[in-house]
Amino acid sequence: MNNHIYREIKKVKESTSILLGLNAAQREEILKDISRLILENQTLILEANAYDVSEVKKMDIHSSMLERLSLTPAKIQNMAQSVEAIALLKDPLGHVLDGFNAPSGIRVEKVTVPLGVVAIIYESRPNVTSDTAALCLKSGNGIVLKGGKETIRSNRAIVKIFHDVLERHCLPASLVYMAETREEMDAILSMNDIIDVVIPRGGTELVQYVSKHSQIPVIKHDKGVCHLYVHSDADFSQAVNIAINAKTQRPSVCNAIETLLVDSLIFEEFLSFLKPSLEDKGTIIYACDRAINIFKAHLAHDENYYTEYGDNILNVRVVENIDEAIEHINSFGSHHSDAIVTDNYKMAEYFLDKVDSACVYVNASTRFSDGGEFGFGAEMGIATGKLHVRGPMGLNELTTYKFKIRGQGQIRM
Amino acid sequence: MNNHIYREIKKVKESTSILLGLNAAQREEILKDISRLILENQTLILEANAYDVSEVKKMDIHSSMLERLSLTPAKIQNMAQSVEAIALLKDPLGHVLDGFNAPSGIRVEKVTVPLGVVAIIYESRPNVTSDTAALCLKSGNGIVLKGGKETIRSNRAIVKIFHDVLERHCLPASLVYMAETREEMDAILSMNDIIDVVIPRGGTELVQYVSKHSQIPVIKHDKGVCHLYVHSDADFSQAVNIAINAKTQRPSVCNAIETLLVDSLIFEEFLSFLKPSLEDKGTIIYACDRAINIFKAHLAHDENYYTEYGDNILNVRVVENIDEAIEHINSFGSHHSDAIVTDNYKMAEYFLDKVDSACVYVNASTRFSDGGEFGFGAEMGIATGKLHVRGPMGLNELTTYKFKIRGQGQIRM
Repeated sequence: MNNHIYREIKKVKESTSILLGLNAAQREEILKDISRLILENQTLILEANAYDVSEVKKMDIHSSMLERLSLTPAKIQNMAQSVEAIALLKDPLGHVLDGFNAPSGIRVEKVTVPLGVVAIIYESRPNVTSDTAALCLKSGNGIVLKGGKETIRSNRAIVKIFHDVLERHCLPASLVYMAETREEMDAILSMNDIIDVVIPRGGTELVQYVSKHSQIPVIKHDKGVCHLYVHSDADFSQAVNIAINAKTQRPSVCNAIETLLVDSLIFEEFLSFLKPSLEDKGTIIYACDRAINIFKAHLAHDENYYTEYGDNILNVRVVENIDEAIEHINSFGSHHSDAIVTDNYKMAEYFLDKVDSACVYVNASTRFSDGGEFGFGAEMGIATGKLHVRGPMGLNELTTYKFKIRGQGQIRM
Repeated sequence: MNNHIYREIKKVKESTSILLGLNAAQREEILKDISRLILENQTLILEANAYDVSEVKKMDIHSSMLERLSLTPAKIQNMAQSVEAIALLKDPLGHVLDGFNAPSGIRVEKVTVPLGVVAIIYESRPNVTSDTAALCLKSGNGIVLKGGKETIRSNRAIVKIFHDVLERHCLPASLVYMAETREEMDAILSMNDIIDVVIPRGGTELVQYVSKHSQIPVIKHDKGVCHLYVHSDADFSQAVNIAINAKTQRPSVCNAIETLLVDSLIFEEFLSFLKPSLEDKGTIIYACDRAINIFKAHLAHDENYYTEYGDNILNVRVVENIDEAIEHINSFGSHHSDAIVTDNYKMAEYFLDKVDSACVYVNASTRFSDGGEFGFGAEMGIATGKLHVRGPMGLNELTTYKFKIRGQGQIRM
């Protein structure tokens, strides 16, 4: 079994040298063809998906998961458009990041190149299959996909389109490998000699499992435990707008907030002002012992502050001052996206400097932490680690670099 | 035991927020004081080192190791100069890498910040202690050091200087923690909640041990199995100069070559031309079945091609053509530094594109793969992985970035 997978993954690696030989226009053309074929094969994909959905309905599955994995003609149109948009992104390869003549006279050029083979492990969302495989092809990488088992037929249908198009372009289908079992995934995580990076996208359990067991470097797209801190100098209407947007506009996503921190100087006044809007949205509140009197709320414990609810639930905690707010964020948060509302210049800059997160906001909603909103195009996700990439991960972060050095016979003295 | 270390490392983490509050001039001043105190405490350091050396002499230790760990007044002068040079490097923090107004009107700034806490695990070389700790302080990082046990007293003397200077500047000595035992190291490698990156520097065994057991992201400074390929269109004198330099100028370092690949079209003529120079240098040869007739040599096997000798030993292999050379390099090499000698433009570009290494050279010695030679100043080493940093790792690579986002109340639609 393991030998079989090793050979398959080895083929992915070997095929990448052919991909490296293509120019940007050729890679763009391939992705446009894939986009076109996704639309042309809509019926096949929908049939495969209907089968997945019918199987899932037999199980005891959360309705939000069912919504995520169910495809519709409109969603397939979005998938195709997303691949087309990736096709049109600026080529990330061969970009000269730096270049100089070293003291010895050698000419050093630092140039972007593909990472090599990228493995993506994700939950049951068919659009992640097409998006991530397209991003990897565009950036010249071989691809190993392992999606949730609930969408296995949908994913097969999508991967088949990639294989067909690659073959039409006289390229090896082995550039895109789809693993189907947990056993395969475990084998893959040990192949640090052929896979260059593994990217887990999904729930905390998945991310932790991969981080713990992988011998391959991991780029984590971990949970988002995001915060909004309402400072004593906040514009209350602005703070309410941002709090409601950051919590309720789409509670299931990672850049939604889980905890609202309110400065002790203004907490009674502000929370009374905020209360009707939260009630209007039906938000469930877990509150600290001081805020609890204002809300009909459950008492919040430390475990609440560590939790990514992914739902319309909010912790509310009163903090003494900005330092306590920052300490709370840095200890309980996931270093993803955190915001302050304040009209105080000093406090704004202090918060930007001291909060140890990928995206730190003043007077704006954390919901903007998104490759699309940043103008990067489609994204792999929001990286919560610190190495290689932090925050929105787009096409450029699927590359590394090499130094190309041209000499005229120089030797070292 | 583990609880004790956990508390110590936690203190390192907590102290970093104080370091974050210093400006560039203050960090520079601290490092200049450390440089000065290294010189002033020369006698203390030499005494501690003499004790280390006397202990090591009782054991059966390789003479090159003894040379590396023995300090002299000249070496201490170099250590102090190196710290002074790091003090004077351009501040790597607060550098705006990118900045733009996103479509929503929020202002996004991508700014360099420290990684946080950096752990360095290395062999018995006291100068690595001062160099790496200085690089980390300059870049605003907390430091966890674990050097080889053979230099424990020398390292204590050096770390004490860091502690003294930090305290003179009213900073916590806990910013620099020195671990002393293997047990401590193992505990440290599990602390992925407080340490942001671990950098192993040293032999293959050390690097593999750390990679295998670390729960913290690893930046590898792995072995250098470097190659020189002499193409059929090579200038023979240039090729001899480069081969001799790359192998013999300093055989113990990672950017020296281990294998010489020679094109089959010219191998007899070229190797006969090269032979006297290698004999002159006393180089020991392992040759393939075709080259063996030219040298009084041992027969090379696959395991020779995988080996970093770190010594005046060279594999010589005849390859059919450039593709076989590239395949050899990509399979047997360590993706560190590899060179071609050729006057053929197409072959030069082909080699630069296809060899999957951090540094790829045309007509120059691999010995230039070095932060100093590239003009980066002191370096942490040569990174052989692909994420975050590849090739010479200097000060800038000890940083990550965050997005600072300034809004005027924007919410996501």
